[in-house]
Amino acid sequence: MKLRPIGHLHTPFRTLAECPRNGRQLDPAPLCHAVIEAEFLPGLRCIEGFSHLIVLYWLDQAEPRGLSFVPPFDTAERGVFATRAPWRPNPIGLSVVAFDGFAAPERLRLRYLDCVDGTPLLDIKPYLPSVDAEPDAATGWLAPHVGRRTVAR
Amino acid sequence: MKLRPIGHLHTPFRTLAECPRNGRQLDPAPLCHAVIEAEFLPGLRCIEGFSHLIVLYWLDQAEPRGLSFVPPFDTAERGVFATRAPWRPNPIGLSVVAFDGFAAPERLRLRYLDCVDGTPLLDIKPYLPSVDAEPDAATGWLAPHVGRRTVAR
Repeated sequence: MKLRPIGHLHTPFRTLAECPRNGRQLDPAPLCHAVIEAEFLPGLRCIEGFSHLIVLYWLDQAEPRGLSFVPPFDTAERGVFATRAPWRPNPIGLSVVAFDGFAAPERLRLRYLDCVDGTPLLDIKPYLPSVDAEPDAATGWLAPHVGRRTVAR
Repeated sequence: MKLRPIGHLHTPFRTLAECPRNGRQLDPAPLCHAVIEAEFLPGLRCIEGFSHLIVLYWLDQAEPRGLSFVPPFDTAERGVFATRAPWRPNPIGLSVVAFDGFAAPERLRLRYLDCVDGTPLLDIKPYLPSVDAEPDAATGWLAPHVGRRTVAR
């Protein structure tokens, strides 16, 4: 199970410390870009028209930690699979982003990214509300935090 | 960028041919399970209370194809990043699933999976409507298909 980058993500966040807690925390959300390697450009055919995309990326700067920890905004220990923290057994990041069209044939305009500039991009999928949107989902221990729209990770 | 399974997904679909087009196609959606390896069980702490999860998995049975193709229900060529097809440069599958609690400490009850029985599981993330739900997203070339709630892949 080996991965290879299909491109990179470009954000205004140059270090982990500059990254927001999630991609919706900053208002307005800054413009970001996905830059796709030339060999993968044919895979973008017909992506125009989707307002939102799911991007998967490799959290290459997340240092390994244990499988449970006390989140910074919290007082109890939580398992990593009950959080969106970047230090995960398989450090794959996921963001639902707004797609604002192409800045160049290999350069997609995106909003709502929260990762470090230069993060390796693994996949782009079209967002489909019929299978991806659960607006009434219950958020367990995170409920008091997501209520504030500064979603915890 | 190497991955390791944290467990496996168990579904009623024993072959690719038996898999539905998407996890919401079958009504009622069959009960599926995620079985987590013992060493990763501490990562599940506090996952109770989330009604929905995002699962990432390794599409180990998807044969490689080109970067664009004509989907089976379609007449035009589409780029892989404009589809949810399983043959991708990095074959990571993603499903938003309903979480119906634990059948055993290492066994989660899930609905809305559409993958083959035994698929290697890579990650579980809690679904957060505040960052993951975009119920009004536009679906581009897929719009005529998702309108029928038998979402194309």
